[in-house]
Amino acid sequence: MVRNPKPSVLDNNCGSRQVLALIANKWTAIVIYQLSQGTKRYSELQREIGGVSQKMLTQTLRNLERDGLVERKVYPVIPPMVEYSLTQLGKTLIEPLCRLCEWAEIHLYEVEVARTRYEDRNNQRMN
Amino acid sequence: MVRNPKPSVLDNNCGSRQVLALIANKWTAIVIYQLSQGTKRYSELQREIGGVSQKMLTQTLRNLERDGLVERKVYPVIPPMVEYSLTQLGKTLIEPLCRLCEWAEIHLYEVEVARTRYEDRNNQRMN
Repeated sequence: MVRNPKPSVLDNNCGSRQVLALIANKWTAIVIYQLSQGTKRYSELQREIGGVSQKMLTQTLRNLERDGLVERKVYPVIPPMVEYSLTQLGKTLIEPLCRLCEWAEIHLYEVEVARTRYEDRNNQRMN
Repeated sequence: MVRNPKPSVLDNNCGSRQVLALIANKWTAIVIYQLSQGTKRYSELQREIGGVSQKMLTQTLRNLERDGLVERKVYPVIPPMVEYSLTQLGKTLIEPLCRLCEWAEIHLYEVEVARTRYEDRNNQRMN
């Protein structure tokens, strides 16, 4: 495989584009936001993250485990207990991803005002 | 409309979840990464961002304009010239989103190593 001298997300064929797709994702952001508090069980994550389907949570955790951001630990008890925590690599994403979650919460009203203004302008154009 | 006392991305019914979906998105991250360099024409963005379809770029820019993150300026020339730049609100996303793009580029090899290890482990389990 020929490697670019420097990976670039601008290059469609560069693996960093795929990595960006994993990390610049709302479910990844929310899961890492929650795991930044510490180790959690699957059931805890599912309860805390409103509206996440089992399929989506499982897929997100599996992708994060595969890419080395999350560690999955299975305890051989009955029923089996599965715990998730951030790896060292995963912890380096806490800051930028928590910033995004907080940005969405802090700037929600500004975004809503902009959206209303945009829709009003578009409605005026159509009238 | 009844508002939560504090918006939370954990709440599926909170508008901040939708805002997070817009900003925690690879195309948004790449567009803001590019616009952090300054005003750009549509055609420049399309040329610089490898593999982005016209539909995806137009949709991403439209969502960012609607939500007040990007300003669109149309110059009445023939053929029409359209320029995009970040608003004050959009500029507050430069830092976290550029961090994500850079993270993907910097940590690509670590992720690839983790992915290979994960696949090897899974293959061993299946044998």
